[in-house]
Amino acid sequence: MTTSAPRRPLRIVLAPDSLKGSLPAAGAALAMSAGVTAAAARLGHPAPDVVLVPLADGGEGTLDALLAAWRVEARTTSCHDAAGRVRTARYGISEDHGAPGSRVRGVLEAAEANGLPLVADRPLDALAATSYGVGEIAARLLDDGADEILLCIGGSATTDGGAGLLAALGARFLDADGDPLTPGGGALGALATIDVSQLHPRARDVRWRIAVDVDNPLCGPRGAATVFGPQKGATPDDVVVLEAGLSRLARVVAGSTGVDMLEVPGAGAAGGLPAVLVPFLGAEIVPGSALVADAVGLAGALADADLVLTGEGSFDAQSLGGKVVHAVVANAPAACAVVVIAGRVQLPAARVHDAGLAAAFSLATGPMALDELIEGAGALMEDAAAQVYGVFSAGRV
Amino acid sequence: MTTSAPRRPLRIVLAPDSLKGSLPAAGAALAMSAGVTAAAARLGHPAPDVVLVPLADGGEGTLDALLAAWRVEARTTSCHDAAGRVRTARYGISEDHGAPGSRVRGVLEAAEANGLPLVADRPLDALAATSYGVGEIAARLLDDGADEILLCIGGSATTDGGAGLLAALGARFLDADGDPLTPGGGALGALATIDVSQLHPRARDVRWRIAVDVDNPLCGPRGAATVFGPQKGATPDDVVVLEAGLSRLARVVAGSTGVDMLEVPGAGAAGGLPAVLVPFLGAEIVPGSALVADAVGLAGALADADLVLTGEGSFDAQSLGGKVVHAVVANAPAACAVVVIAGRVQLPAARVHDAGLAAAFSLATGPMALDELIEGAGALMEDAAAQVYGVFSAGRV
Repeated sequence: MTTSAPRRPLRIVLAPDSLKGSLPAAGAALAMSAGVTAAAARLGHPAPDVVLVPLADGGEGTLDALLAAWRVEARTTSCHDAAGRVRTARYGISEDHGAPGSRVRGVLEAAEANGLPLVADRPLDALAATSYGVGEIAARLLDDGADEILLCIGGSATTDGGAGLLAALGARFLDADGDPLTPGGGALGALATIDVSQLHPRARDVRWRIAVDVDNPLCGPRGAATVFGPQKGATPDDVVVLEAGLSRLARVVAGSTGVDMLEVPGAGAAGGLPAVLVPFLGAEIVPGSALVADAVGLAGALADADLVLTGEGSFDAQSLGGKVVHAVVANAPAACAVVVIAGRVQLPAARVHDAGLAAAFSLATGPMALDELIEGAGALMEDAAAQVYGVFSAGRV
Repeated sequence: MTTSAPRRPLRIVLAPDSLKGSLPAAGAALAMSAGVTAAAARLGHPAPDVVLVPLADGGEGTLDALLAAWRVEARTTSCHDAAGRVRTARYGISEDHGAPGSRVRGVLEAAEANGLPLVADRPLDALAATSYGVGEIAARLLDDGADEILLCIGGSATTDGGAGLLAALGARFLDADGDPLTPGGGALGALATIDVSQLHPRARDVRWRIAVDVDNPLCGPRGAATVFGPQKGATPDDVVVLEAGLSRLARVVAGSTGVDMLEVPGAGAAGGLPAVLVPFLGAEIVPGSALVADAVGLAGALADADLVLTGEGSFDAQSLGGKVVHAVVANAPAACAVVVIAGRVQLPAARVHDAGLAAAFSLATGPMALDELIEGAGALMEDAAAQVYGVFSAGRV
């Protein structure tokens, strides 16, 4: 029987990704918290010092994870979708604590404006789809006083190289006659100059960081038009037009800024948004999970932790190559044990240990169907966290 | 990252039940051993001091578990099945270490002689089915020098109140004319006296212990004939005859020994075998898992253990009420953490902790079918043990 208690309250950080389709990251962290807290009480241990740090990988759910971490409500703003229709988008901004050196952080999910699902109700026009709405949200963040803007850009319907985004911030994309281009990547082939003299006054004063988890270049056989164009409704002919447009954009950008975006891995993400953000605004391309880990202060939370529970829907080789689990391991000090709780654990214990983790457990409590696992995820997560607490704390006697 | 090592080698006892249909207890213990040993090596820890103590609950697999624990091969002997046909039965006997006070232990599974599957090839004759063969194996154990005989009696085809068993050891069951009864419970109604003057010379010198996990009485609505008779081929008329026979047996036994077996819980197990073993041979009725735990020296193995891994096919409320897991918890000292690894975990963490366990994990690594779990049980058990080692050892930093 296990009756001995740890000598001092354990410090436990709960830092899961969302479990896609069943639990948002904040819900997973709450379930974990309930599990370890109840287990400690049952076992007669001092209540653990629990810190909830829901995470995300820069994709869907990142805005919600950061809102939870910053303890703020979502703000909303009016903007245009990829087809030019007005809609309301959510975004987030951290509070200004007024401390010297502290920064106000803003986050937006580009898909709130140029997302593919938002325009799924009508035939997709790949040539005209514009990221203008993303720039409208960004402008709002500038107006709200953000010192740093985190852009999560997955799931876009656009292939305009970010021209729309930058236009919404005040840039003008002009043809050889000095006339503005029509919106969308289809018009970029006629681009002659980019006039950034009227950019939003704060646009160059803030730090821009783009969450990117692909290394596709802007152009070529692995480029934005060829690889991602077809899923955004581009016909083979459209792909040729978009490829030429992005190529032209890169040439004009290079001529104007000296930055060759054709050579930058990841510049092809989200229809080429980085192609203007990097050269004109000095944006950094960052792996999504690292960006989020930084934005929520994961390293600080883990500094004196005994145990961190992380989790995700499926724990597999990708988890160790830039996903949330990787960010947790990278930020955990040597004395902090890292345990994964996932819907599905696809790596053997050898891989788990070699990656610097103490263990990885599944939510499954026996033979069960995926449906069952998804529906019961909250309760199963709470229970699994309690079990892990039981073993970990027993080891500390 | 988890890089700190435990200060000294951990002492880990691996004491699972079998996982019915997939892993024998010895196989489960070996898989656990491979898992924790490999994990320690990977994590740069001192090799743990590992002790394998495969367990059983007194049912099928108990003989094999004790053979493994005693490190001896099975012996065989000729005997008769419930229908009187000759067959070869396996049994086990521990080595005689010659130390003062040490005992030679023998074990038999009654079903090796009077088992229901052995006579499934022909119409069952519930009235004639005899436990004589069980007595033949017991006689062989006496001849081989056993000082203690453990009887595992589940799965029988007989309802003869152990008359056949005792007859094989030299007793004579006589009618009012002094003639021997024909074999089987159907003849017991004519029982007048039991002559034990010719019993095997060692029969009363040894300690008899019967593994019993039911509390059914010998007679009445919850008795051996009424409850278990039908599954042994007894028609409703047969049940009436068998009930009368067992009742008559109890009366004769009480008259001859003063022991009223009608009042003894569990006397109705296995067609009433305890009805003669208890009064004539002083046999004790013991919960199966406690009997096995004692026979393999579980308490001694756990005395200075840091962690014990146990396991079974399905961990549920029954597990805590007399099964192997219960025996492990009962024998584990306070400083030893008990962790269950089971095919299916059916109790929530609250019940697990309240029962004195540190945790219970399933073999499942995600949504999977029962077949998958059964087929992969060995590898999954090794992996699960490695994961548990990872968390437990991390806690000891």
